[in-house]
Amino acid sequence: MNGEDWRRVLTDASKEVQRKVTRVAEQGEASKALEVGASGDTTLLADKEAESELFKALTRIKGLRIVSEEAGSWGDPKAKLVAIVDPLDGSSNFERRIPFYCTSVAVATGGSLKDVRFGLVRNLVNGDVYWAEKGKGCTKNGEHAAPSRVTSLSDTVMDADLSRAPPELIAGMGPLISAVKRQVHQGANALELCFVAEGKVDAFVDLRKKMRSTDFAAAYLIATEAGATVTDSDGGVLDPELDLAARFSFVAANNKTLHRRILELLPG
Amino acid sequence: MNGEDWRRVLTDASKEVQRKVTRVAEQGEASKALEVGASGDTTLLADKEAESELFKALTRIKGLRIVSEEAGSWGDPKAKLVAIVDPLDGSSNFERRIPFYCTSVAVATGGSLKDVRFGLVRNLVNGDVYWAEKGKGCTKNGEHAAPSRVTSLSDTVMDADLSRAPPELIAGMGPLISAVKRQVHQGANALELCFVAEGKVDAFVDLRKKMRSTDFAAAYLIATEAGATVTDSDGGVLDPELDLAARFSFVAANNKTLHRRILELLPG
Repeated sequence: MNGEDWRRVLTDASKEVQRKVTRVAEQGEASKALEVGASGDTTLLADKEAESELFKALTRIKGLRIVSEEAGSWGDPKAKLVAIVDPLDGSSNFERRIPFYCTSVAVATGGSLKDVRFGLVRNLVNGDVYWAEKGKGCTKNGEHAAPSRVTSLSDTVMDADLSRAPPELIAGMGPLISAVKRQVHQGANALELCFVAEGKVDAFVDLRKKMRSTDFAAAYLIATEAGATVTDSDGGVLDPELDLAARFSFVAANNKTLHRRILELLPG
Repeated sequence: MNGEDWRRVLTDASKEVQRKVTRVAEQGEASKALEVGASGDTTLLADKEAESELFKALTRIKGLRIVSEEAGSWGDPKAKLVAIVDPLDGSSNFERRIPFYCTSVAVATGGSLKDVRFGLVRNLVNGDVYWAEKGKGCTKNGEHAAPSRVTSLSDTVMDADLSRAPPELIAGMGPLISAVKRQVHQGANALELCFVAEGKVDAFVDLRKKMRSTDFAAAYLIATEAGATVTDSDGGVLDPELDLAARFSFVAANNKTLHRRILELLPG
């Protein structure tokens, strides 16, 4: 399968996910919970329905292993091709009827982040589709997407995930949060990283060592292909394993200048 | 004019605002800036268009003074009746094409927050209308609205506005942010306070002494009429003047138990 094939398969599969979770919401079952998933989070009915739609499409593809937020790892462990998926990123928003959640699918030809070849994130509320193929740039709904050109911290809208961060880490981030124009956070990481790719926010920082590949791999490719800079918390190469165990921090910014300014204010 | 009259006038006027700002966005002029408004913020074309729609309706009402985020104070300074409006709360989101902004109108029979009699907030993206009349409860799109029943900090989704807070204040909020399930912030305060009223988030805290009556008065009535507890940062009565000069902090929570637990973790 080439890039165009993957784009078509993932676009169609994610559209089915959108249809399915929209129906769950319309039937008043947004907060219906089922069990605890592979990741340790509570699984909603909508998580399960979203996953089953993605699996319907992905399990048809030969030689593909799937790593999913809910079901864990599926398929031949020796398969060269791996799909890393979060069927419903932002489940808590969905549960609370806050219209901000997405589906995220990355396809890799190896076991770590650098091996991701294709990434698709769909906003399940308005249907926006972010897509990237490694080396070929990034699109939103088929149009070229690019980060903002902001370079000054005082003009920066910065997403920061502070949820359950230790108090010392929050204190350590004080100078940075204080320096930017606005701190925002909405609770669907893949979609929020796509917001950096398309210039809706200028940066996204998560220093809690809690990010997982399932809701990061696709948006990472989308953001970097759009031209954003995404590193670990020291500015080094970010290359976690594409499994459910790896947890990491990251600093994403629209451009190298803002990225450097953010790093300078971070706790050492 | 009785409550039903006000509800109708404000519902219709805010619908026109929605139509107008939607058109500005569709014409690709979301980030078109004009000047610096009465509040010191940059005024977008959309701010101005939104304000002009509200003024069209409000200036028809006899004996009404208007205090607006953009235009400042308008009408007879001795008028008993005052409307406190933010025509486009969340302008920065609008400017960045982030679909989270609203219009806010409160009507008071005196000069401070306790005198607010009616409040309406309209989500300008999806048209949701939050409405309250003092002593008569709160509705969302005509249906009864109520806060969540969460009482434990570890289950709490808490909105906190940290933008440009001093580093020491951010550090002081570390224990609280660390204790809750998630910290979120979207950047349209009136709408975010309505999210407390309808249980989408459990609490909303802003300790920066920067909140203004224009984007607070309507949602304050909506939240308190829904049953939420809203106080100053010490748990005391919140009763700022309904003008552009007053700046204040607040702690809003779904119920008294969670409100007390939040206060206990705040810097003294």
